[in-house]
Amino acid sequence: MILENISGPKDLKGLTIEELHTLVDETRIALLEKISVHGGHSGPNLGMVEMTVALHHVFDSPVDKIVFDVSHQTYIHKMLTGRQKAFTDPKHYDDVSGYTNPKESEHDLFTIGHTSTSLSLASGILHARDLKKEKGNVVAIIGDGSLSGGMAYEGLNTIATLGTNAIIIINDNDQSIAKNPKGGIYTALRELRENKDQVTNNIFKALGYDYHYLEDGNNLEELISLFNEVKDIEHPVVLHIYTEKGKGFEPAEKDHEKFHAGGPFSLETGEYKNQGASSQTYNGITSQYLAKKLEEDSLAVVVNAGTPRIVFDREIREKFRSQFVDVGIAEQQAATMTTGLAKNGAKPIWSVFSTFLQRAYDQLSHDMALNNQAGVVLVYGASINSMNDESHLGFFDIPFISHIPNFVYLAPTNKEEHLAMLDWAINQDKHPVAIRVPVGSVVETGEEDTTDYSILNKNKVVKTGEKVAIFGVGNFYGLAEKVVEQLKSKHNIEATLVNPKFLTGLDKELLNSLEENHKLAVTIEDGIVEGGYGQTVASFLGNIGLKVQNYGISKKFYDRYKVEELMEENGLTVNNIVKNVIENL
Amino acid sequence: MILENISGPKDLKGLTIEELHTLVDETRIALLEKISVHGGHSGPNLGMVEMTVALHHVFDSPVDKIVFDVSHQTYIHKMLTGRQKAFTDPKHYDDVSGYTNPKESEHDLFTIGHTSTSLSLASGILHARDLKKEKGNVVAIIGDGSLSGGMAYEGLNTIATLGTNAIIIINDNDQSIAKNPKGGIYTALRELRENKDQVTNNIFKALGYDYHYLEDGNNLEELISLFNEVKDIEHPVVLHIYTEKGKGFEPAEKDHEKFHAGGPFSLETGEYKNQGASSQTYNGITSQYLAKKLEEDSLAVVVNAGTPRIVFDREIREKFRSQFVDVGIAEQQAATMTTGLAKNGAKPIWSVFSTFLQRAYDQLSHDMALNNQAGVVLVYGASINSMNDESHLGFFDIPFISHIPNFVYLAPTNKEEHLAMLDWAINQDKHPVAIRVPVGSVVETGEEDTTDYSILNKNKVVKTGEKVAIFGVGNFYGLAEKVVEQLKSKHNIEATLVNPKFLTGLDKELLNSLEENHKLAVTIEDGIVEGGYGQTVASFLGNIGLKVQNYGISKKFYDRYKVEELMEENGLTVNNIVKNVIENL
Repeated sequence: MILENISGPKDLKGLTIEELHTLVDETRIALLEKISVHGGHSGPNLGMVEMTVALHHVFDSPVDKIVFDVSHQTYIHKMLTGRQKAFTDPKHYDDVSGYTNPKESEHDLFTIGHTSTSLSLASGILHARDLKKEKGNVVAIIGDGSLSGGMAYEGLNTIATLGTNAIIIINDNDQSIAKNPKGGIYTALRELRENKDQVTNNIFKALGYDYHYLEDGNNLEELISLFNEVKDIEHPVVLHIYTEKGKGFEPAEKDHEKFHAGGPFSLETGEYKNQGASSQTYNGITSQYLAKKLEEDSLAVVVNAGTPRIVFDREIREKFRSQFVDVGIAEQQAATMTTGLAKNGAKPIWSVFSTFLQRAYDQLSHDMALNNQAGVVLVYGASINSMNDESHLGFFDIPFISHIPNFVYLAPTNKEEHLAMLDWAINQDKHPVAIRVPVGSVVETGEEDTTDYSILNKNKVVKTGEKVAIFGVGNFYGLAEKVVEQLKSKHNIEATLVNPKFLTGLDKELLNSLEENHKLAVTIEDGIVEGGYGQTVASFLGNIGLKVQNYGISKKFYDRYKVEELMEENGLTVNNIVKNVIENL
Repeated sequence: MILENISGPKDLKGLTIEELHTLVDETRIALLEKISVHGGHSGPNLGMVEMTVALHHVFDSPVDKIVFDVSHQTYIHKMLTGRQKAFTDPKHYDDVSGYTNPKESEHDLFTIGHTSTSLSLASGILHARDLKKEKGNVVAIIGDGSLSGGMAYEGLNTIATLGTNAIIIINDNDQSIAKNPKGGIYTALRELRENKDQVTNNIFKALGYDYHYLEDGNNLEELISLFNEVKDIEHPVVLHIYTEKGKGFEPAEKDHEKFHAGGPFSLETGEYKNQGASSQTYNGITSQYLAKKLEEDSLAVVVNAGTPRIVFDREIREKFRSQFVDVGIAEQQAATMTTGLAKNGAKPIWSVFSTFLQRAYDQLSHDMALNNQAGVVLVYGASINSMNDESHLGFFDIPFISHIPNFVYLAPTNKEEHLAMLDWAINQDKHPVAIRVPVGSVVETGEEDTTDYSILNKNKVVKTGEKVAIFGVGNFYGLAEKVVEQLKSKHNIEATLVNPKFLTGLDKELLNSLEENHKLAVTIEDGIVEGGYGQTVASFLGNIGLKVQNYGISKKFYDRYKVEELMEENGLTVNNIVKNVIENL
């Protein structure tokens, strides 16, 4: 075993090429064993094994600064920088995050989970180095998928301008998360690959870069030789390296999309485990609805930014072709294209994760909302019950969307409401509308929702009571129901129960009417409390004299939390809420 | 006069080339006469006269869709599309906005004031056209400066992918707002210009575009000929057209930066009027401070995204060179480079207008705040007393910054506080800090502010009173003072006066202490009330039982408003606030 003797990059320096090859094999096996049991990003890491070994053999981290883009391709890097137990010892599998993390190691510069960030970060690192008159290499590693984000281009521009040492590695595996659409930067990269860099127009050279192409990015000797060639170079250089996604695991080599990331799988067959009896989900319901909509209405069009599988499998996407547009990992483009589509009479529906939607704040505001175009934004994973890495949190969207003028943001609480809201949102032409796709077990009422959602900000009073009114927002409506039940069963209080439905405005008539026989209003939402829905209620009721309690999550970047603990920590339990209500009546 | 007979684009169709030349002369004279008296964007429009006449002569708006980027280069377009009186008749000068505006004309597709938007908007327009199986050209016009924004690159990628009719005009005047920095896309454009498109690597061709270069973009005949050549083309094409910024007005031809935009000026000398006796401003104070800081500390570095004049004149920028980085109109890059600079030990200060800062929401959150890097963001024009075009509003920043974890957002109320906050923010290394650079007349206390700002969220109680506590936030602290004065003089109430200073957290000790002898808390802030500072106070006090009144602007895209009317409309007057306080005590 070579791997067990590697406690940090320095231990790679003296190894022979044979030993380095052994290390490659050992790390790849460890990687496969862990992710087949534990799940994770398989494809991106399998393709990076040789490159990562070569990087740490040639460069001297942390004096040389290595900046990974999106950073889910850093498992091998972690193995080589003091964290191998987290890959070789099942007891320690959860010791590390799936992204770079400065709390784990000095070799991890940033906590990063959103794409297209590496070049901008590197530009700052290298300019600081120059201001300090220090030496050392700054190496940024970015995938071809991440290159589709505009920020990567902005970073390319700045680094070219600065003109000093910068080594930009484009890890090109001809595949971002799904098959890249044809055209633009992807076409440019493909032409470079297919012609072994002998093309008429090279985009990197056009931007002023010294450019090197390496066709076999899984060839250890060639990688080492290339890195040695550019180490300590005094100007920016692009190394365009063609790697094989999923390298070394046949099923992953054959199906890049399936093996980008996922749960545990069989090392023999490549089949994912835990696939049986998949119950109905809100995402599934949404996809079925959208497929039918596209079928029925040739002007309906689903827009996506690099996460197509949240909407449709490959076959369905291919069926609809022009009615499914994946713009690459380019949320700004998705938002503003949605605006243009609506303006010219199409019915665009942009499907996007909450955590990535924040990459298009200005486009939601200045483009879609200011121009009041009736695009629809479906916000996925907007819940504490979603991705729980601190770089992928999905519970800041209420504050950042709700206060944009003109936007209508809806929070359905069950299947029928969700479908009715989808129908209304897509077919109306008056407002930009966002819908918080519910997260959690599917609730069915069995009755079609016939609400007229064009009457904005009309809350649904589910139960009229007295003393206290409980506002259960979206995913946390069920929690509000339970609070109402316990108030009745334990304290014989008939509380009022409200489903606000609209996050972007208040039902002022309802709120004013509470004064008559209520002392307290309680809001419960699945998001941060600061800037959230509840605080707008508190503000409105502040001058009426009702007491108000706002429940949600305190603003903070939580990392790999347990949902129940997080809820407990933030007082989001039936017992605690009921206790606080009773104390304040 | 040809111009007076032009009521719309159709009237340009039958004109002879001589008549079109006359029209060019007449519109340029009208333009110069108006902006010399009225102010506005001179340079960008002077350079676009011939192109705009040629566009409307060749294309058939609104069947053909013309999408202008940023849209402050559309004065001639407005003259030719039914709005000439707004340029030829001083009484009507204010009839039109400085940007495209669908409320004014069907030839204006969008209200747009932020850059790099045109290609994404056009991608939506043209894909909707294709879904509808309609014909017609989609023409997007983007300046070289706007091409530095990542969203423009994202739009280029998508349009190339779609592969149908799209005519992208790059209006290259070798100058964005200020002199472009060397490198990246600007270098690529310059090489194309200098070599009359005979370059080894053409970035547009690399991205799959059919590419045409026109060296004399102010030559009417050549423009018409080029437009006719590409009209109804069935694939995307880039027309790279070199125009002269300021064309036809010598002072503007000679100093592009000075004549990008401004107030009234002399047509004889080119001198701006109203330059005498410029009083001290907060922006000026900030610039002086920063110049001194850069001088003293070689690791301090000012970052800017295409608006360098808000910080330094050209001479000062050139003096500092590596300590002043203008990344182009690329706010994402500015934010994340700032993060990288801080990480590697520099002291970055990013100066940015509030309205443009929202283009980097994710970078503030996921890059700077999640990584908790001590970059400083100076937020300019964050007030209702700033740019008042609906596309340039600067009063949404409290909601979108304040709820990002880890960020410290400070609102100084006078010169001494501002300087003390600057000093603390730049020299500390614990938090990402934003400072709302004050807007309005400079207030000096004459006493150095020695507050230790590392004690977060500590409010300053300026006056301890009873019954009502008035929280005067940042720019509106003065209004709060007046409310306190009137409460005393008219109602003999000794109100408590608080300067919260921190927008990102509450002084809970202070708020809890209010219960003892206060009935009401009033917050007054220079921003929208929804999601603002006041609502966090309302939420906290909601369960204590104090009444709360939150004052600010209701969320809405206000356009070319008068500040006094806006304040009146939102109840932001001393009399109204005092009245409401009295009624609720």
